[in-house]
Amino acid sequence: MISGKEKKIIAYHEAGHALVTYYSPEADPVQKISVISRGQAGGYTLKVPLEDRRLRSRRQFLAELAVLLAGYASERLVLGDISTGATNDLKEASALTRKLVTQFGMSDKLGPITYGKTEEMVFLGREITTEKNYSEKMATEIDAEVKKTITNAEKTAEKIIKTHRQKLDLLADTLMKKEIIEKEEFEKLMSA
Amino acid sequence: MISGKEKKIIAYHEAGHALVTYYSPEADPVQKISVISRGQAGGYTLKVPLEDRRLRSRRQFLAELAVLLAGYASERLVLGDISTGATNDLKEASALTRKLVTQFGMSDKLGPITYGKTEEMVFLGREITTEKNYSEKMATEIDAEVKKTITNAEKTAEKIIKTHRQKLDLLADTLMKKEIIEKEEFEKLMSA
Amino acid sequence: MISGKEKKIIAYHEAGHALVTYYSPEADPVQKISVISRGQAGGYTLKVPLEDRRLRSRRQFLAELAVLLAGYASERLVLGDISTGATNDLKEASALTRKLVTQFGMSDKLGPITYGKTEEMVFLGREITTEKNYSEKMATEIDAEVKKTITNAEKTAEKIIKTHRQKLDLLADTLMKKEIIEKEEFEKLMSA
Amino acid sequence: MISGKEKKIIAYHEAGHALVTYYSPEADPVQKISVISRGQAGGYTLKVPLEDRRLRSRRQFLAELAVLLAGYASERLVLGDISTGATNDLKEASALTRKLVTQFGMSDKLGPITYGKTEEMVFLGREITTEKNYSEKMATEIDAEVKKTITNAEKTAEKIIKTHRQKLDLLADTLMKKEIIEKEEFEKLMSA
Amino acid sequence: MISGKEKKIIAYHEAGHALVTYYSPEADPVQKISVISRGQAGGYTLKVPLEDRRLRSRRQFLAELAVLLAGYASERLVLGDISTGATNDLKEASALTRKLVTQFGMSDKLGPITYGKTEEMVFLGREITTEKNYSEKMATEIDAEVKKTITNAEKTAEKIIKTHRQKLDLLADTLMKKEIIEKEEFEKLMSA
Amino acid sequence: MISGKEKKIIAYHEAGHALVTYYSPEADPVQKISVISRGQAGGYTLKVPLEDRRLRSRRQFLAELAVLLAGYASERLVLGDISTGATNDLKEASALTRKLVTQFGMSDKLGPITYGKTEEMVFLGREITTEKNYSEKMATEIDAEVKKTITNAEKTAEKIIKTHRQKLDLLADTLMKKEIIEKEEFEKLMSA
Repeated sequence: MISGKEKKIIAYHEAGHALVTYYSPEADPVQKISVISRGQAGGYTLKVPLEDRRLRSRRQFLAELAVLLAGYASERLVLGDISTGATNDLKEASALTRKLVTQFGMSDKLGPITYGKTEEMVFLGREITTEKNYSEKMATEIDAEVKKTITNAEKTAEKIIKTHRQKLDLLADTLMKKEIIEKEEFEKLMSA
Repeated sequence: MISGKEKKIIAYHEAGHALVTYYSPEADPVQKISVISRGQAGGYTLKVPLEDRRLRSRRQFLAELAVLLAGYASERLVLGDISTGATNDLKEASALTRKLVTQFGMSDKLGPITYGKTEEMVFLGREITTEKNYSEKMATEIDAEVKKTITNAEKTAEKIIKTHRQKLDLLADTLMKKEIIEKEEFEKLMSA
Repeated sequence: MISGKEKKIIAYHEAGHALVTYYSPEADPVQKISVISRGQAGGYTLKVPLEDRRLRSRRQFLAELAVLLAGYASERLVLGDISTGATNDLKEASALTRKLVTQFGMSDKLGPITYGKTEEMVFLGREITTEKNYSEKMATEIDAEVKKTITNAEKTAEKIIKTHRQKLDLLADTLMKKEIIEKEEFEKLMSA
Repeated sequence: MISGKEKKIIAYHEAGHALVTYYSPEADPVQKISVISRGQAGGYTLKVPLEDRRLRSRRQFLAELAVLLAGYASERLVLGDISTGATNDLKEASALTRKLVTQFGMSDKLGPITYGKTEEMVFLGREITTEKNYSEKMATEIDAEVKKTITNAEKTAEKIIKTHRQKLDLLADTLMKKEIIEKEEFEKLMSA
Repeated sequence: MISGKEKKIIAYHEAGHALVTYYSPEADPVQKISVISRGQAGGYTLKVPLEDRRLRSRRQFLAELAVLLAGYASERLVLGDISTGATNDLKEASALTRKLVTQFGMSDKLGPITYGKTEEMVFLGREITTEKNYSEKMATEIDAEVKKTITNAEKTAEKIIKTHRQKLDLLADTLMKKEIIEKEEFEKLMSA
Repeated sequence: MISGKEKKIIAYHEAGHALVTYYSPEADPVQKISVISRGQAGGYTLKVPLEDRRLRSRRQFLAELAVLLAGYASERLVLGDISTGATNDLKEASALTRKLVTQFGMSDKLGPITYGKTEEMVFLGREITTEKNYSEKMATEIDAEVKKTITNAEKTAEKIIKTHRQKLDLLADTLMKKEIIEKEEFEKLMSA
């Protein structure tokens, strides 16, 4: 059994993800929001892509980052505290941003150069860095670009949350009552 | 057989933990205090959570840090010396603070970014850092945030101890006489 | 099935490679351009060397770098966004540039000195660095030379693309319609 | 057979340990002094604790450091040279001081924070550092604290040796003649 | 089949080695020059020592470095481009220079000190560095000495090539025609 | 067969060792000098200790360093070149100096502190560093102390060689003629 206090945190966290998704033209549409825990996650917000994709673009990634940080931003702005419920979002957002900057050439400042040799370890199911082939000075520039990119994504999320605060409260209240919001109801609530 | 001098150190150490727990609204209530050694520990203070938790918040962690440092602060303030009895508390507090700053996005200065790839090694029963993916400059900022957070928690503990010094002496004296204080007696002593 | 939007990205990406190849005297001639995906790649541009080579020269490598960055530059200039379709090009260009600077003595600033011991691991099919035998200061100079070399190659690609923008559009449009351009048609389109 | 010159070095070395032990209230009492070599050590000074201990305090450690450095200080002050006979003392003193500073929270400047993850390797019978989890800047501060602590302990030892130089000579002379001084004789010599 | 353009590169490369060898009193005499490829090498210049040697001196090493860099210098000065044909020469020259500076005490600035523990791995047939036992500051000084030494050797080679440019052209032309120059013919050409 | 030129280098190298040994009161007396190669060494100078030793002192080590560098200094001063014949001397002198500074507390500037955890690997027959437990700043100070100590030892050797140059020439000439000098002849030559 989850306490009322935790349910509120999870509801505002997931409402944050859903709200920022809705107002990001580059993000996939929301399919379902739930505050029923699944595995380690307190709740979840499902998004479904409209079409198959072979490529991802810089604009799509920046939208994805804002969505990832929206749960954290919502907890912070509404409840004035931060919970461990955002840990996986932060981990994912940070890893994605490092790839953007060091593998995809998507930072204006660092340009079309890749940093660090990485290798897909198929048998381990993950990518590992096999060599740090750059200087400390470059590591410092990479950190600065990562921080700037994440901070901008956080601001984007915060701005959407502040502008649409009533919708956020509406979503969170509905989640606390019903625990699940399906696609149709979500769109009805948002367009009301 | 434990000497009288060591019993006094342990009594003030555990009294410190219990006192700071009592005056921290975010901390779990004290269940039992003991100066009878158990394994490597000289004594122990049991706390029991009021409800199941899926999430931990920044405020709860800061309270937990003050409680962890309370034994050290009590020895230092009352006895004017520091013993190895605080070693595990410091280790736990330091590890927790590093997670707060580098994994949970709970430092205002460093923001919602994770630093260092970590992995749960199930068969070893612990988490290891598999990659230091940040610069020396960021390592320096992380150290500064860790130090600031721990120092603030220590000050919080010290302030509670100084404000309620008579209660601390009462708890320590009782422990030196009876060796164990159960929940009911603890609350009676504190509310007297 | 690939979406129309992705086809356009891939078409401009491959048209960029082909265009810059055509206008680089040191590069091998274009044999075929395709926007039909093959493995992980969205499309591909085949070049065929005119003769067997035992040696590669600095000028050839600089032309190859401009060709490698042409897909990225074309996406950026024409579509105003960057996609993950350029990831392998950037990886290859960065690795080649590091070899140019650290193994081939082809940077004027660093001169005829090799940095880092490398070894061909025949059984793994790749080269690994077995020892970083230089200082951080030198690592910083290497990074600066790599960045300068890549940036120059990017500018070379951009300049060709801007100068021959109509040819680029012609190639991309043809690719979106026909999906494949063979050598003869390519040369007809270019010389028209 | 040991030469007369080496016997003198060892006698002053052990006399230094014994003298500083005697004048350090926090140190355990001297049980036996010997200049008969045992294993790698030239001689030895036995101390026996007065009671069982579960805890060690900062003051006890600082006394222990002065005792450890007393052999080195005695050779230096009396003979004007330093021998390899002090090597193990320096190794032990340095390792203890690093623990004081990085594991026990006993440096005022660094405070109640632990640096470096360490693990007891039971099957190897020793502790290893599994992770350097702090910055170069912090490593520099740790080195400075270690140096300050050792230098202070050396000064403490030197001061005791200079103040009680006649007792030191008396102990060394006795050792050169008799090779062993037992507890009773030691106390008689010191209180004479 | 090798193209005429590549033959010219290889001919000037080998002519460079042979010419600088001829004008370096400390170098062994040229035995044979060939532009017929052997293994990975485009061509080769054989030198044969006049006597058995147990020792190598600083002056001999400096002559050897100039000879090693002569192929690179010749390509650069005559053809205005640099090829991968010099890669092994640069690798060998760089490794030798590092030994000169860090193992043989042959740098005036660094003096008779060795840096880095190395070990002959007999079963692997090569030497490996088992420990970097010096500071970053020293690594920077080592790099600067390596660069100065190589740059001086390059200048020595360039000066010989510029002074004897006609001989270089004569050797290269002969190589392009005959592919091989034996010792007798070499000496006839040089002394003509 | 060794050439006359190499014999001269080896003779002056060994004469240097023997001469500096003779004029260093702390060094063991010369037993034999030879320029007949043995294993990798070109020649050798045997010293035999006058008595068994359990301890080594700072003064003895400084004398040993001057002796180790005397072959290098002799080649440099007399022949104006340096050979690889000094390589093992430099390796040994550098390793000994690092131990002096980091393990034996024999540097005034660094004091009685040990740096780096080392372990005797009995089965490998050598000592390895298992942990670099100090900062870059300290590594820089260690390098500076090592350089100062070696430079001073080199100056000591040079001064003895310059002062007794005629004796050096006498020893070298004798070695070139006879190849071996035994203890008695050595002392006769020196006291002549």
